[in-house]
Amino acid sequence: MPDARLLPDFAAVRAAAARIAPVLPHTPVMHSHTLDALSGARLFFKCDHLQKTGAFKARGAVNAVLGLSDDQAARGVATHSSGNHGAALAWAARLRGIAAHVVVPANANRAKRANIARYGARIIDCEPTLAAREAALATVLAATGANAVPPYDDARVIAGQGTAALELIEQVGGLDDLVVPVGGGGLLAGSALAARGLDAAIRVYGAEPSGADDAARSFAAGERLLQTDPRTIADGLRTSLGELNFAIIHRDVQDIITVTEAEIVAAMRLFWEVCKQLIEPSSATVLAAVLARPGYFAGRRTGLILSGGNVDLDAPLPWMETPA
Amino acid sequence: MPDARLLPDFAAVRAAAARIAPVLPHTPVMHSHTLDALSGARLFFKCDHLQKTGAFKARGAVNAVLGLSDDQAARGVATHSSGNHGAALAWAARLRGIAAHVVVPANANRAKRANIARYGARIIDCEPTLAAREAALATVLAATGANAVPPYDDARVIAGQGTAALELIEQVGGLDDLVVPVGGGGLLAGSALAARGLDAAIRVYGAEPSGADDAARSFAAGERLLQTDPRTIADGLRTSLGELNFAIIHRDVQDIITVTEAEIVAAMRLFWEVCKQLIEPSSATVLAAVLARPGYFAGRRTGLILSGGNVDLDAPLPWMETPA
Repeated sequence: MPDARLLPDFAAVRAAAARIAPVLPHTPVMHSHTLDALSGARLFFKCDHLQKTGAFKARGAVNAVLGLSDDQAARGVATHSSGNHGAALAWAARLRGIAAHVVVPANANRAKRANIARYGARIIDCEPTLAAREAALATVLAATGANAVPPYDDARVIAGQGTAALELIEQVGGLDDLVVPVGGGGLLAGSALAARGLDAAIRVYGAEPSGADDAARSFAAGERLLQTDPRTIADGLRTSLGELNFAIIHRDVQDIITVTEAEIVAAMRLFWEVCKQLIEPSSATVLAAVLARPGYFAGRRTGLILSGGNVDLDAPLPWMETPA
Repeated sequence: MPDARLLPDFAAVRAAAARIAPVLPHTPVMHSHTLDALSGARLFFKCDHLQKTGAFKARGAVNAVLGLSDDQAARGVATHSSGNHGAALAWAARLRGIAAHVVVPANANRAKRANIARYGARIIDCEPTLAAREAALATVLAATGANAVPPYDDARVIAGQGTAALELIEQVGGLDDLVVPVGGGGLLAGSALAARGLDAAIRVYGAEPSGADDAARSFAAGERLLQTDPRTIADGLRTSLGELNFAIIHRDVQDIITVTEAEIVAAMRLFWEVCKQLIEPSSATVLAAVLARPGYFAGRRTGLILSGGNVDLDAPLPWMETPA
């Protein structure tokens, strides 16, 4: 376990909110009578698929990039990312007028890869393993002297991601629960810090694909277990939980709810149809989790964070594919 | 031409806005730096795909249904509709606790047909011709004594549809142009009344598929020409312009801009990707029109009405289909 003094806290989330405010306007909150009736709860959807770059990742990236000194910033930034974090870091770097280098694994979704390039980053391709990603990044860092901005296991990034929950709770008021997708754990850890800081009675849940359930297994075991061979359509949630992230999640989160691929796809389609919002599969895990656990949420005011909307529109819709 | 005294006017649009206000909250307005840069204009999208029932049609239907006397209402309402108007009338009838009978042609999109059923209307199937639709409706009216609420050629419906433009102009302030999809012409005629009433300098354009271009041909000829054999993916825009609608459009609209199927599909995909909003092909005609006529809109503040979001998600995405 990392030293608790290394963990970001609620004050860091507040500071991140102040830092990102000039460039990232608050995203809207949606609700739906149809989905309330279906779930038995009162649902508030935080629309971070409408965030700049199409995902919450802009929050952590902007917080990290704007927190660099001018000397640090002049050397640029670098990361490895399967997509949304890379695009967010590229966007934040362009905002500050500095270089971004992004290591992208070969299995990244095309829409996300295109976003990284669109925002002007240099893309470095690699094999889709954590070892290959880290090796490629080390090479880039050595060659450029750039500042590493990890996708989730980083105090600045966790604090930045926590601003989505901070906004949501302040926009809606009086939430009972918060349901958040969990992959590397930046969004979930940040959300837990925000909820704990604002109202300790809010129950915070992670929503995770059963085909990449390292957070659920780690949570149950009380120690961080890595994800090998993830199998899920939710391409933002395939990575292992980070160290800092696990320490916060283990301390502050109520439970991790796992959902099947069929539940994710059904929830995604339902949300497209009812709310006309193009959310990506990772976002749909939260609605899937609420529908899968009616006993947890009946009659409660539940916030759900929609993490992104970068769907690959060149691929068939998931409910159109012939089952394997 | 109908007697000008039969045409609804700006006061009717204002009255409709007051009548629908308690049940239909204002829909939001979106903008996008990416689409502004691409078009060279400043674009304001009125999100009626987020209207109740997923389309602007709720406005005219609610205005007509709430305007009935109690005696009239007790006999129920009836219409023929390829989809969104039928769903809207069903929704409005349920709101008032009265019966709705909807004649639906066999080629209606499945999502729209499902909405009509979901809101509790009785569905009467018919062949996909105007003659068959009118014959089936006449039979229903004779059997039930219900009040006919036509989809577009009706003063109450036109006035109701005009409330979308009224809201948009008041939400945004200082528009130069308004671009509106045109099928039967309820939305376009109502929008023209609203724009003319609020600010006569606003230029109002219709956006129409070239495969169903009766409005453009009628506008050029100065007389109403009917649509035969429409060929367009924009299933909301296949009908002929109504009589009242043509009279208003001929008097108050600047021009009708036709767009190809390829332009509609490209604009729809672009809007999905950039704005994460699931708009249907009919809605995409307005963005297609603005992108097709940069000379009309460069440097101007242009409002675009997104008419609906009822996409058939069981069909392949239009850009995925093999070209015929």
